[in-house]
Amino acid sequence: MKYLRVKIDGLDPAGSYGILEGEVIHIVDRSPLEGTPEKTGIKVHMADVKTFLPPVESPVIIALGLNYKEHARESRMDIPPAPVIFLKAITSLTGHLQNIILPAEAPDFVDYEAELTVVIGQRAKNIPEEKAHNYILGYTCGNDVSARDCQLKLDKQWARAKSFDTFAPVGPCIVTDVNPDNLRIQSRVNGIIMQDANTSDMVFNVAKIVSYLSRQMTLLPGTLIMTGTPSGVGFARKEPVFLREGDTVKIDIEGIGVLENTVCRE
Amino acid sequence: MKYLRVKIDGLDPAGSYGILEGEVIHIVDRSPLEGTPEKTGIKVHMADVKTFLPPVESPVIIALGLNYKEHARESRMDIPPAPVIFLKAITSLTGHLQNIILPAEAPDFVDYEAELTVVIGQRAKNIPEEKAHNYILGYTCGNDVSARDCQLKLDKQWARAKSFDTFAPVGPCIVTDVNPDNLRIQSRVNGIIMQDANTSDMVFNVAKIVSYLSRQMTLLPGTLIMTGTPSGVGFARKEPVFLREGDTVKIDIEGIGVLENTVCRE
Repeated sequence: MKYLRVKIDGLDPAGSYGILEGEVIHIVDRSPLEGTPEKTGIKVHMADVKTFLPPVESPVIIALGLNYKEHARESRMDIPPAPVIFLKAITSLTGHLQNIILPAEAPDFVDYEAELTVVIGQRAKNIPEEKAHNYILGYTCGNDVSARDCQLKLDKQWARAKSFDTFAPVGPCIVTDVNPDNLRIQSRVNGIIMQDANTSDMVFNVAKIVSYLSRQMTLLPGTLIMTGTPSGVGFARKEPVFLREGDTVKIDIEGIGVLENTVCRE
Repeated sequence: MKYLRVKIDGLDPAGSYGILEGEVIHIVDRSPLEGTPEKTGIKVHMADVKTFLPPVESPVIIALGLNYKEHARESRMDIPPAPVIFLKAITSLTGHLQNIILPAEAPDFVDYEAELTVVIGQRAKNIPEEKAHNYILGYTCGNDVSARDCQLKLDKQWARAKSFDTFAPVGPCIVTDVNPDNLRIQSRVNGIIMQDANTSDMVFNVAKIVSYLSRQMTLLPGTLIMTGTPSGVGFARKEPVFLREGDTVKIDIEGIGVLENTVCRE
């Protein structure tokens, strides 16, 4: 199943949930976090949607650092013995085809990070690894956008660098039936492949991450978990690449879809 | 005005908002974030309330580190040139008279931090210092509970250490008419004074903090800003003090009230 959330003229101005079948969105009567959505009979073609919202409403965004060995190496950091956790403010969320805004406060060193993003489906606390999948609604594409000057030079805590408005694009849809442990994951900037890896290279896989996090805090339905990024990010390249006005960034995850955002200035 | 939120038998099981006058709570018809609350005519005595909730529903908790000079010194850290920001997961929120739970994952080095806590009243983005007070609903007492082993030994990012469930007690009420720049602030553990300072000792005062944060991200109504803790925290004492089962922790801020929580084990 593929769930998404869109704004459609004439329907709820706060947004409507839908199920994607081929290129057709079937508008449904509720969020997939609130029971099994039923089709309302209203159908919309993907190509006619002007506004994609993050596919669910999320109370919390948890993100992992250094969860791919090659990325830890390019960042000159050790592979961590336990997941490295930080939080992104939910005000940084944005949807497919929305702008990533280079903030006036830190416009010059903004970087992309392709991340498989877990969507929690039901309240989870102290869950063993082997039951983690029962608490997951599905998976979406995420971009853990980061202002590298704030993250690596100015601050020691990463929250600010990663919480500017629009620094958490997610979508376009949540896919419920993929194997998260073996998915090709790519980022492309203006069509050029920047990251190209497989989620099988994660240091901690999805089940381990969800189990671990559920021992640190209660995971509420809709919680997003960005599971870390593979090597190839902009700041670590031989010729560093940072996002500039007009750039197009795509996060492409096998079996899930392509999250596309264009860059503009505040 | 003093706003709070309580659960009362026979009223909304999700909680009711109230205005505190003396020791009497006047139940009102809405959150102070949704316009001016009107009294419903229902009154409850403070002493009869069994469950205090965090005084508003909060989408985000932002917290500051090292915002009192003496605390930076006791932590052996430099006084920061700009506010040090981190986030606490909203799942860590709890109310007055609720338990602080020592988590099974990290029960042994849990510490208190008394903090003046700002409650944002309306959406704020790029606000100048001199207008910051227009965006503040009021102030409450907060305890930025922290697992020091996670914060200072195991992790470099502070999010996990400060986001265990119940690690953000706030309350009992939001006071709208105090001067945040000159308030005595204390913590007491089992009646013994551990922290005793004045908010005038902050490195960055409330107006500077709100203005700064509003340039990093949109502040939504209900956002809590924990403005940092003064010296006297448990880990930095000559004889370190950590919270143990049965301890009572009080955060007492002049003109606001006393936030009290008892410690238990998971």
